[in-house]
Amino acid sequence: MSVLDTEAQHQILIKARTHSAWLNKPVADEALHRIYDLMKWGQTSANTSPARLVFVKSKEGKEKLLPCLAPGNVDKTKAAPVTAIVAMDTAFYEKLPKLFPHVDARSWFAGKAALIEETAFRNGSLQGGYFILAARAMGLDCGPMSGFDNAKLDAAFFAGTTWKSNFLCNLGYGDPTKLHPRFPRLDFNEACRIV
Amino acid sequence: MSVLDTEAQHQILIKARTHSAWLNKPVADEALHRIYDLMKWGQTSANTSPARLVFVKSKEGKEKLLPCLAPGNVDKTKAAPVTAIVAMDTAFYEKLPKLFPHVDARSWFAGKAALIEETAFRNGSLQGGYFILAARAMGLDCGPMSGFDNAKLDAAFFAGTTWKSNFLCNLGYGDPTKLHPRFPRLDFNEACRIV
Repeated sequence: MSVLDTEAQHQILIKARTHSAWLNKPVADEALHRIYDLMKWGQTSANTSPARLVFVKSKEGKEKLLPCLAPGNVDKTKAAPVTAIVAMDTAFYEKLPKLFPHVDARSWFAGKAALIEETAFRNGSLQGGYFILAARAMGLDCGPMSGFDNAKLDAAFFAGTTWKSNFLCNLGYGDPTKLHPRFPRLDFNEACRIV
Repeated sequence: MSVLDTEAQHQILIKARTHSAWLNKPVADEALHRIYDLMKWGQTSANTSPARLVFVKSKEGKEKLLPCLAPGNVDKTKAAPVTAIVAMDTAFYEKLPKLFPHVDARSWFAGKAALIEETAFRNGSLQGGYFILAARAMGLDCGPMSGFDNAKLDAAFFAGTTWKSNFLCNLGYGDPTKLHPRFPRLDFNEACRIV
């Protein structure tokens, strides 16, 4: 396996930026299917795949979403063609007979609330990383957000279900003229060790 | 921005597999630096970047690590050229004057234990997703694992520090002849909705 070409590295990570200003260009449902069909292959613990995605595109959907947001996130979310609710299914283990069929993996989780929560949050967030890079791989820009009321959003979108919100991510075609200079990152020696 | 070419999509997600059997081929420190220098650009909430990486390569490091593992993970970890401890810094907010310099973002977190834990775990896991795809972009194979004793590992590697383990990931060149058939994934309609 060779090293991914520089242009691809730039597209998914090095030059990809968090966008808050969106061009007036719609995102087709087809693109959302393609993002999922790419991200779904990402690895998760015992193939649990707990992430769930709600793509909010309609006027009605946005109206339900906007009151859940922190004030600073309202305008950019209103302007984004799509806002993805990156959620997780707290009953993910019910799918294990399909996803991990050779053993009874369901029994590793059923009834174990702390393990369920930890596994859903860790692997659902890991899949959030796959989702963001898959969206960029499909040529879209991303604006992820944690600034919202999870409980209020869950009541509005997930009442009576086992799904729970993790974070939000605006999707569309960002306006590059509205970007600010990029923030620094930690150096290797601040974040890593080789032992 | 165009769609990433098919070969690149295959390399980072579609054809990338979880490896447990490793070729006897070392991984240079230089490759570990390149992985970090790619993954570090991934987005996190307020640029918090809480993930920390310990690349365990030495005999001494492996000897410290192996007793922390679930029995099923010992042999493959012993054989892997590198095992990354994907950790998170629970004092990540101390770096915010560098990472998010235009406001006092440190004060959003300092002293708020539940918010610190949630932010570190969500964003540290999100960065775990960036890390895995960055490693594949650099031509390496990954074998992530949750099966280990986090408290024991933290005592062995992180005593007296603010770092905590999240998950482990073997890195190297996988032996493709030892792969099993791939497990299925959830269909779009099982995992996603457009509203």
